[in-house]
Amino acid sequence: MPQAADALPASRHLPVLRLAGAAANLAEDQLIEEVPVAMVYNGVSHAVLLATPCDLADFALGFSLSEHILHAPDELYDCEIITATGGIELQLEIASARFAALKQRRRSMAGRTGCGLCGVDSLDAVAQTIAPLPLRPSLRAAAVARAVAELPHWQPWHHATGAAHGAAFCNADGDILLAREDVGRHNALDKLIGALRRQRIDTGDGFVLVSSRASYEMVQKTASAGIAALVAVSAPTAYAVALAESCGLLLAGFARPGRLVAYSQLPRLIRPELTRPHHDPVY
Amino acid sequence: MPQAADALPASRHLPVLRLAGAAANLAEDQLIEEVPVAMVYNGVSHAVLLATPCDLADFALGFSLSEHILHAPDELYDCEIITATGGIELQLEIASARFAALKQRRRSMAGRTGCGLCGVDSLDAVAQTIAPLPLRPSLRAAAVARAVAELPHWQPWHHATGAAHGAAFCNADGDILLAREDVGRHNALDKLIGALRRQRIDTGDGFVLVSSRASYEMVQKTASAGIAALVAVSAPTAYAVALAESCGLLLAGFARPGRLVAYSQLPRLIRPELTRPHHDPVY
Repeated sequence: MPQAADALPASRHLPVLRLAGAAANLAEDQLIEEVPVAMVYNGVSHAVLLATPCDLADFALGFSLSEHILHAPDELYDCEIITATGGIELQLEIASARFAALKQRRRSMAGRTGCGLCGVDSLDAVAQTIAPLPLRPSLRAAAVARAVAELPHWQPWHHATGAAHGAAFCNADGDILLAREDVGRHNALDKLIGALRRQRIDTGDGFVLVSSRASYEMVQKTASAGIAALVAVSAPTAYAVALAESCGLLLAGFARPGRLVAYSQLPRLIRPELTRPHHDPVY
Repeated sequence: MPQAADALPASRHLPVLRLAGAAANLAEDQLIEEVPVAMVYNGVSHAVLLATPCDLADFALGFSLSEHILHAPDELYDCEIITATGGIELQLEIASARFAALKQRRRSMAGRTGCGLCGVDSLDAVAQTIAPLPLRPSLRAAAVARAVAELPHWQPWHHATGAAHGAAFCNADGDILLAREDVGRHNALDKLIGALRRQRIDTGDGFVLVSSRASYEMVQKTASAGIAALVAVSAPTAYAVALAESCGLLLAGFARPGRLVAYSQLPRLIRPELTRPHHDPVY
């Protein structure tokens, strides 16, 4: 559920004109908010992301871990949320060794202006090696179905505005333990990862469920967080499947109540008992 | 319609396991492709974007214009599409004045590693001034309804894979003149803008229709291209509405056959004739 202590509201009511057939009526709509959020490390502004201003402390930690700016949650000493002209600054105080590494990383990069892959301005730098995941969790279709049915109850901002993505962590039984929302699906996942770490929730078993598609970066963030299964409500990309294969992540998509499509790690899934009727398939 | 002459296929067939109730069946799915695409200007690699490898020449021009690397289409002299290890390089040859400006821009920026707003690493740099749009096009509800009904026929990749966004340019009557697709909605819009310029299509009247939500950057790209109306199938963000207001862009969302919600420029829309029955509302 969204935290209350954020600097700006996560949505805004605005006047709108509804056109339906020949009728035009003035009304009021609740719109998701999107603001520039600057990540400032030890006083140095590092990046600006457009994000929904809720759960920003989770976002700060999750982004820092996903980007490998921090290696562990306890390297983040403080996070102050400052409303500034033009957006929000997240003033992060991080371990000096990590800040030194970040400065070195910034020095060694050419400046770049495109939005795209994080920290990458040539193809040579793309392939971020992700160590094979040590875990081999199972993924039961019934558990996924349960989580999918529950997800809307964990998406209050989406319910109100129709424009927020959700990312949830579910245990092996499909109980949702935590969920986060954002106008951007990458941000929602970073917020979830940050919240899981801040609340010291064991992610050894279980899976991430996202309301969106599963692209390369979604698999990358999930695997980097050491979580071995990702389920998307919508489709994955072929590149995401390739990454999931290479690091041993279970990737499933088109999750609907009672339905699921598995895209990676198929050889270890195709077992005779799966096709027996009245059996709960184990993925 | 997608161009044929691209370097890599835009989709891939992969084996999948479909789980439905108690049944598990091996099948084959068509997945949208996503590959790292490097924009290389006069030999210097500038940014890498994850994109669907179709219509890449359109993408190159549209991205370069949206990012203000180029000011006009004729400043792009050549675009070679090279399949490289790890992705695709778009080798662009641009006017020397523009390349000099790009080098200057890169020198004056600190390196950054976050993905976020283009070329921005602090809040001071966010507010990209967009000149008020000189045009005041109308937007008829019937024209939008017509375009919305036509859009699926212009989304072959989405039809095949369920995972591609579409961006279309429509004339004032709602005829779709051109559409482009990509796994990323920003990329689809950049491809559309590039294709419009390459084909010298007059965008003085008409509107852009996107299959996705309308966020800040979608309004920014549309307005920067001098197109004064943006219609989204899904919701806009509040920040997108604010930008649309400030630059005079007509922003509408939740476009469905016969329905539409207008979010910006309401004062000039609220006219008595709009509420008359059997009248085609003019937005």
